[in-house]
Amino acid sequence: MDPRIREHAEIVVEHSLDVAAGDDVVVAAPAVAEDLVVAVYELLADVGANPVAATSPLEGRTNPRAARAYLGNREEFETPAHHKALFEAADAFLVVRAFENVAEVADLDPTRMTAASKAQRPIQEERLSKRWCLTQFPAMGNAQLAGMSTGAYENFVWDAIIRDWEAQREHQAEMVEILNAADEVRITSGAETDVRMSVAGNHTLNDYGERNLPGGEVFTAPVADSVEGEVLFDKPLYHNGREVTDVYLHFEGGEVVDHAAAKNEDLLAAILETDDGARRLGELGIGMNRGIDQFTYNMLFDEKMGDTVHMAVGSAYAETVGEGNERNESAMHVDMIVDMAEESRIEVDGEVVQRDGTFRFEDGFEQ
Amino acid sequence: MDPRIREHAEIVVEHSLDVAAGDDVVVAAPAVAEDLVVAVYELLADVGANPVAATSPLEGRTNPRAARAYLGNREEFETPAHHKALFEAADAFLVVRAFENVAEVADLDPTRMTAASKAQRPIQEERLSKRWCLTQFPAMGNAQLAGMSTGAYENFVWDAIIRDWEAQREHQAEMVEILNAADEVRITSGAETDVRMSVAGNHTLNDYGERNLPGGEVFTAPVADSVEGEVLFDKPLYHNGREVTDVYLHFEGGEVVDHAAAKNEDLLAAILETDDGARRLGELGIGMNRGIDQFTYNMLFDEKMGDTVHMAVGSAYAETVGEGNERNESAMHVDMIVDMAEESRIEVDGEVVQRDGTFRFEDGFEQ
Repeated sequence: MDPRIREHAEIVVEHSLDVAAGDDVVVAAPAVAEDLVVAVYELLADVGANPVAATSPLEGRTNPRAARAYLGNREEFETPAHHKALFEAADAFLVVRAFENVAEVADLDPTRMTAASKAQRPIQEERLSKRWCLTQFPAMGNAQLAGMSTGAYENFVWDAIIRDWEAQREHQAEMVEILNAADEVRITSGAETDVRMSVAGNHTLNDYGERNLPGGEVFTAPVADSVEGEVLFDKPLYHNGREVTDVYLHFEGGEVVDHAAAKNEDLLAAILETDDGARRLGELGIGMNRGIDQFTYNMLFDEKMGDTVHMAVGSAYAETVGEGNERNESAMHVDMIVDMAEESRIEVDGEVVQRDGTFRFEDGFEQ
Repeated sequence: MDPRIREHAEIVVEHSLDVAAGDDVVVAAPAVAEDLVVAVYELLADVGANPVAATSPLEGRTNPRAARAYLGNREEFETPAHHKALFEAADAFLVVRAFENVAEVADLDPTRMTAASKAQRPIQEERLSKRWCLTQFPAMGNAQLAGMSTGAYENFVWDAIIRDWEAQREHQAEMVEILNAADEVRITSGAETDVRMSVAGNHTLNDYGERNLPGGEVFTAPVADSVEGEVLFDKPLYHNGREVTDVYLHFEGGEVVDHAAAKNEDLLAAILETDDGARRLGELGIGMNRGIDQFTYNMLFDEKMGDTVHMAVGSAYAETVGEGNERNESAMHVDMIVDMAEESRIEVDGEVVQRDGTFRFEDGFEQ
């Protein structure tokens, strides 16, 4: 076994999930990630924790062939009571992404996927209330999507994951402070993107490899009805095996009032039509991980890049919503990325805190 | 996909588990059996049932690499509360056996496996109270163990499974009637085996492809303290990837008072030492499936052969134990086989009902 798999497992068990003796842990991992599961189980045994491996076809991504078989043959879905009971009794949850074929559910009607997400929502909420971690195993399908050899992709994944997360936390703390004190955030990029939103009263979290591994972002929730302006997400969105390019969203009073996409606009429309919350933003995130040096069409990595911001339509994380502010609720949470490397600014209460991808507190920043 | 996989899935969903709309189903299957899971999920979607795939390392057989990693690093085990909650809320349970390598847990200390079985017992009891089915997918490791090509093994497995189970039920009904009316059963084979036991008051069940697929046996529970005599199980026992040959058990007052084996006697000893119930018989079964024509070192098939009887040390199935009779309880249930093809008799209350593998109600029976 590649020794980096054991290092990866150590970070998952000790840092991200902070597993303790007696913890009941759920692991959702595709078969192709078996080596990582083996390494994680060794460590869970050392700690004295109790793992169970469990996946549901309502999620589509952990066993996508089985999910396609199930979702393709049914139109309405219910929340499986036994799956919910499993998570109610669990202490921690690990989900591993790894695709042999990223397009495995590409021919499913998008409305099936959104119907499944709705049925899955009570379980998703239950899981978000526990310790959880989403990580990646370097499978060939993901390498192919990135246009990389499997060996080069392995290096990419483990270079991004096996890092000094305490140093990353400190690097990000400055930006957390800025956003926690902020009222208005304005993001501009090129000719198409100019959007403003209030984050007043909401909380900015420092993601340093706990719930996302790799981590490397700071994120908060926009005040639900405050978002005004236009955004062109110039990095492609990969959702359920299909690519949506040049997503354009126009916000008024917090709501998407106009949208477009160059490719697969029907998938974008299905996402926005999931429920009321899917037409509002639930997250504003700022990528700060300088260890990720290329786009790989994988949100878990792309959104952490230092030259990007991302916004998610759909549900807001409860911990980011301040007392008295409304939490945007939805069965969806879909992140989309703006490349900030050129002709771009993040302004906070009128002051530029990032220009062309360089933060105010980094070398090379020009006021 | 081989069309026989869909036929197999139909029998599982419609006949064995009799799944209904709204049923919460748990599926435990190794990755190598994915095709069968895909076919089963299609049918569960048609019916409107809710599947979740779940496996525990305490079981050792569904994901044996992960199980070895976990069990090898821990000495004492607890019952995972979340896994128990999953089954408490479930309606039906499908477990699929399929090995890429049947020896995957062969180097684990047998006492680890028995400790894990004890921790798993409350979950096992919960599952036995639901509709459940154990079946086989023709994986290469099982084919290799049987000394068969993968193609020939596929034919063997699906010939045994894709059958007229109603006709099988009728064939077996005669033997059920005989045993339900019986007091004493005596089994003799060759020079070494001569054992008597009471089945008075206990119930004989007709297994026609419901809980075991393939099915093809009738089985009951011996009265716990009634077993007297000696048995040489002349077919090898495969347990957790290791082979125990020529298991010899000597019973007095229902208890094993002496035991031996030609190979891997330590594993036999570990089984018998699990708990008090592991030294008593929990099952007497009589194979009646004439569609299984060769030994493949796989209990699910071997014990159904028409020329065999099997006895299990360990727990008795609750439904086989009559009111007022004691149910043998144990964390173990390990079947072992006597070949009845030659120099053998099954006698019920002094009357021969099978001689040299041929039943009284079959052609060629000689009184």
